[in-house]
Amino acid sequence: MTNPLRKNDWLPQPVPFDATITLDRDLPLRDGGSLKRARLAYCRWGHRHLPAVLVLGGISAGRQAFADAGQTGWWEALIGPGKPLDPNLLQIVSLDYIGGAGDSEGPGNSRLAGPQFPAVTTHDQASAIDRLREHLAIDQWQSVIGSSYGGMVTQAVAADHPNTLRRALVIGAANQPWPMASAWRHVQRRLVHLGLEHQLETETLALARSLAMTTYRSGQEFCERFGTADGIRDLTDYLEHCGRQFCDRFDPYAYLTLSRSIDKHQIDPRDIAVPLDVLGFDSDQISPPEQLREFHSRLPGGGFFHIARSTFGHDAFLKETGCVGHHVRQHLETIL
Amino acid sequence: MTNPLRKNDWLPQPVPFDATITLDRDLPLRDGGSLKRARLAYCRWGHRHLPAVLVLGGISAGRQAFADAGQTGWWEALIGPGKPLDPNLLQIVSLDYIGGAGDSEGPGNSRLAGPQFPAVTTHDQASAIDRLREHLAIDQWQSVIGSSYGGMVTQAVAADHPNTLRRALVIGAANQPWPMASAWRHVQRRLVHLGLEHQLETETLALARSLAMTTYRSGQEFCERFGTADGIRDLTDYLEHCGRQFCDRFDPYAYLTLSRSIDKHQIDPRDIAVPLDVLGFDSDQISPPEQLREFHSRLPGGGFFHIARSTFGHDAFLKETGCVGHHVRQHLETIL
Repeated sequence: MTNPLRKNDWLPQPVPFDATITLDRDLPLRDGGSLKRARLAYCRWGHRHLPAVLVLGGISAGRQAFADAGQTGWWEALIGPGKPLDPNLLQIVSLDYIGGAGDSEGPGNSRLAGPQFPAVTTHDQASAIDRLREHLAIDQWQSVIGSSYGGMVTQAVAADHPNTLRRALVIGAANQPWPMASAWRHVQRRLVHLGLEHQLETETLALARSLAMTTYRSGQEFCERFGTADGIRDLTDYLEHCGRQFCDRFDPYAYLTLSRSIDKHQIDPRDIAVPLDVLGFDSDQISPPEQLREFHSRLPGGGFFHIARSTFGHDAFLKETGCVGHHVRQHLETIL
Repeated sequence: MTNPLRKNDWLPQPVPFDATITLDRDLPLRDGGSLKRARLAYCRWGHRHLPAVLVLGGISAGRQAFADAGQTGWWEALIGPGKPLDPNLLQIVSLDYIGGAGDSEGPGNSRLAGPQFPAVTTHDQASAIDRLREHLAIDQWQSVIGSSYGGMVTQAVAADHPNTLRRALVIGAANQPWPMASAWRHVQRRLVHLGLEHQLETETLALARSLAMTTYRSGQEFCERFGTADGIRDLTDYLEHCGRQFCDRFDPYAYLTLSRSIDKHQIDPRDIAVPLDVLGFDSDQISPPEQLREFHSRLPGGGFFHIARSTFGHDAFLKETGCVGHHVRQHLETIL
């Protein structure tokens, strides 16, 4: 990618910037109610005059898409100098979802605590993002790149605020939930509810996460990793570890809020006018290729469509960094 | 299928026969301990001089493979006069698994109640089956036909008691568990344990069954049934219904015993000398085609191999009765 913005190389090296704003106007919510003086926590990397790209990840991904103060970002491999999302060429923004477990307004840090926290849709995330865009004085996102839940939110940004973005890249997310994935999330939420009713929050949240991990990966990957006679012990250790680790950083009500938000997601593809690129993975059990293909075929604004091979299932957006990076570059080349 | 046994048409019409025997000798168990005076509940249909076929189903299937006293059998569509397994031509036998929720020795009806009930392997089921064979004075099963867990038990019969069967048909079961399926069962067992520890047996067993149902079917089937905007409600109602229904007839300890038994299953295919036919389904998430193909390729005794198309996943052995019936007939034609 040759980019005229290389002329800005004389500017001081940009550093990641982490901040929280409080919205001065109420944020009305699609399913009723509103958030008053809601907090939005975001990270930014790259000078403010550079083309702005918004990066959104899964429900457990937060604003730390890139490294900050010793933290490892969830898209570390994609973002940084010389990487597909280069802070010397782009202004890269990410945020904590509202209703989630980060520092944006959510059931763990709001006056509307725990079960009082209202239902949040992907449209509400798009509204919150639009407030953040205004605050950052960004006229237009050159690109919004969203994976998993972030891919659903990206669609809502494109449908509801069409003039605020030029193009989008959606990875592993269709315009509605895949029923089998909804079934798994239903079991997970029932589990978390059971825990909340009987003071077993930690156990049930961990178990829900263990279950979720099986759905984020693929049978082939588990076969390769755990397909020996002793493999089952390693497999159960792995699942337990994933569950415990998740409880340390996630709140059961945040989990319920965002899990429900996925299952409420419904966008008419005809409402998305901007070009929208779609990348999927053949082993994805959460957003399988056939559903992505159907979604993409109904988009009026065009954009590329690609199903890549991977054994990492839905998590390929985190694991197949070479392939994802290639498609991020291809996506950006059409804009920059 | 033309069969010389049609000459026996003059015999009185056979009726299903349901009985329980008590083993006079101890049944040693592969992983330690033994069952003393264990009960074995079985059903038989067809005169005792007819060729004997043993039919085995999944962990929640019992001896009622065929209709008896107003009950609907789990393989009703396959067994009966004029059907692929015809009691006018064959003596058809089925039994309740030991360690299960039926009337054979299990954690719900044994002196070794609940958590005291010992671990049971597929080899132990094969030993129990061999005692039943002796009791019924059957020299040799002309065929053993097993689906799901029953397919694993069928392999153990073939490996451990090779002279007691001529041929076998295994549907949807390989020589070891598929790691992803083990992961799902692990989550289910952790759930059931949590329920037992906190007096929530019914809720957790139901939820474990809801989860199991998602793994027994396929994403495509759920998409066809529940892929509308309102479909999620029907989907969750369906999952809850499956869970509740299961609790009415299953015991949590029986569930744990048989679930663990699946995960302990390990057979060296080279130990199976008799011809073994294998039928699988392309959408099966529990025993996927690639695993069945690998298993079949290592069988020294040969037998046919077929992967059929279905959207019913692992449950295709219950739902695709036309296809399964066709392969049962093909299997029997090589023997009778």
